[in-house]
Amino acid sequence: MSEWQFIDWIRSKTGSLGKPVDPVVLGPGDDAGIVRLTPETIAAVDMLMDGVHFDLKKIPATLAGRKALAVNLSDLAAMGARPVCALVSLALPTKDGRALGEQIMEGILELAKEFEVTILGGDTNSWAGRTVISVTVLGEPLPDRAPLTRSGARPGDWVLVTGSLGGSLGQGKNLGRGRHLTFTPRVREAAQLNMGYEITSMIDLSDGLATDAAHIARESGLTIFLNPDRIPVSPDVPKGSPELSPEASKQQRLKQAMTDGEDFELMFTSPPDIARKILTSSILSGVPVTHIGECRVGDPVLKWQDGTPIKADGYQHQLD
Amino acid sequence: MSEWQFIDWIRSKTGSLGKPVDPVVLGPGDDAGIVRLTPETIAAVDMLMDGVHFDLKKIPATLAGRKALAVNLSDLAAMGARPVCALVSLALPTKDGRALGEQIMEGILELAKEFEVTILGGDTNSWAGRTVISVTVLGEPLPDRAPLTRSGARPGDWVLVTGSLGGSLGQGKNLGRGRHLTFTPRVREAAQLNMGYEITSMIDLSDGLATDAAHIARESGLTIFLNPDRIPVSPDVPKGSPELSPEASKQQRLKQAMTDGEDFELMFTSPPDIARKILTSSILSGVPVTHIGECRVGDPVLKWQDGTPIKADGYQHQLD
Repeated sequence: MSEWQFIDWIRSKTGSLGKPVDPVVLGPGDDAGIVRLTPETIAAVDMLMDGVHFDLKKIPATLAGRKALAVNLSDLAAMGARPVCALVSLALPTKDGRALGEQIMEGILELAKEFEVTILGGDTNSWAGRTVISVTVLGEPLPDRAPLTRSGARPGDWVLVTGSLGGSLGQGKNLGRGRHLTFTPRVREAAQLNMGYEITSMIDLSDGLATDAAHIARESGLTIFLNPDRIPVSPDVPKGSPELSPEASKQQRLKQAMTDGEDFELMFTSPPDIARKILTSSILSGVPVTHIGECRVGDPVLKWQDGTPIKADGYQHQLD
Repeated sequence: MSEWQFIDWIRSKTGSLGKPVDPVVLGPGDDAGIVRLTPETIAAVDMLMDGVHFDLKKIPATLAGRKALAVNLSDLAAMGARPVCALVSLALPTKDGRALGEQIMEGILELAKEFEVTILGGDTNSWAGRTVISVTVLGEPLPDRAPLTRSGARPGDWVLVTGSLGGSLGQGKNLGRGRHLTFTPRVREAAQLNMGYEITSMIDLSDGLATDAAHIARESGLTIFLNPDRIPVSPDVPKGSPELSPEASKQQRLKQAMTDGEDFELMFTSPPDIARKILTSSILSGVPVTHIGECRVGDPVLKWQDGTPIKADGYQHQLD
């Protein structure tokens, strides 16, 4: 596969040759791309590998591409920011690499269109190894709203989470085919929250609540107490095995919700009066928000509300 | 290796935790980084793979990291732009991945320091495959100077090149150990050219002059005629084999200069009066500039000055 032909193909799909879509001043095909952004540029990168974050023996490459952009959009969402453009670098297997690359790009472009993100540039390579997709997304703060970080939570804040958690990878013979491939990054919901409410900190749940909530505790320098009865367990988490007691089943499902990872929901903190407004408003139409805990003065760790430490043994990628 | 520990390590090296270096507002460790840039942001990405762009069985990982940033800085140089920050994503082998990742980052950080580039963010992963390094670099135009592109060459412009070409990979048992690992990206030279002179187009020579000059011809819509006697052949290109005639040796060396690739020198075009000034000035102290050809009205292709087409069969990566 010639990189040059591949750029032609990308250009044919994005129409950016000679007719750059605002805000892109110069699209793929030069040594670099040029984009107009606010003075504060927000940037994130994620790399996904075949056999780790997706398995091309089980799923169409379009979904791998979609996921590679989606996880980056989720990072921008967590900043309460607006994604604008993305750069894509690919390592493709020598055999059938071009067709695979096109499928990956189709998955990326479809999601990019949905979120009005332009492909600013890329780099394609082939090798004897398995497919690697690295996506960098660039964005900007929402009008008059500072980006949200992990370090702004304050003692007394409530901890809230969107959606439900666990089982994202799929189970049994559908392992790897779950909603981690098809989730909608919470870009719109994060923008609605950041525009309408005082959000003190936010993170997207990629490694599992047990790991990611600990990041907020650590960066904000406080203890986060979670209520185990409030954690929204996804219907994708299987019911417990018949040989387990109801209580053991419940614990097993809770553990999956806390540690499976790849939920790509938002966890965020707000002062209680604001949090109550968010919980009773219908601003996130169709996306539930749940109050799962509180921030208190204390060591920068995660605990159950009875004081038991929560072990942050997040999801270990294992699709292969 | 835990990504979190790795971020700690990167933070310890960059000192950006709590003390962000201007222009970085928020460094590694959140969902995204924040950097202050001019309204026009310039961005490039390159992915390098073990066994293709470097071979970790032959070279220290620091050099692989250095190269991964250097090729990106070379892309920004080709735009006549100033690199500001970079994002790094890594796929590392499970075994000894952390030590390898640290060595790669050390190579990146050393070159980053030299060019005052900050590491804005990153993503580390481990897998059963070989090492992959993807670097995205963000930059901005030089004060009051538009970025240089591939499309601005005009009929009559002279074609110039910095440095000398060919043999960058190394030869024989030193294959893979050549200057492609240690070259200095022409960021300063490109800035001096763009600030001081009318440069109509510019490209960095990554795939070989035969391929890269054709990009300028194609994007600018004109024929580029090159003088074979003027191509600066690098001393790294071996003298011809003893069994070859002097003319055949010369042809063989010229072919290497045209197609070996990975030179990361600059090719650029300027009106003749400007080009003469550049050639007689000492602005690029220590870096030679050579007049190798002219742009003329015609098909968007590359020819020798006698009209023979130049086949653009650039360098095919093959280190393994």
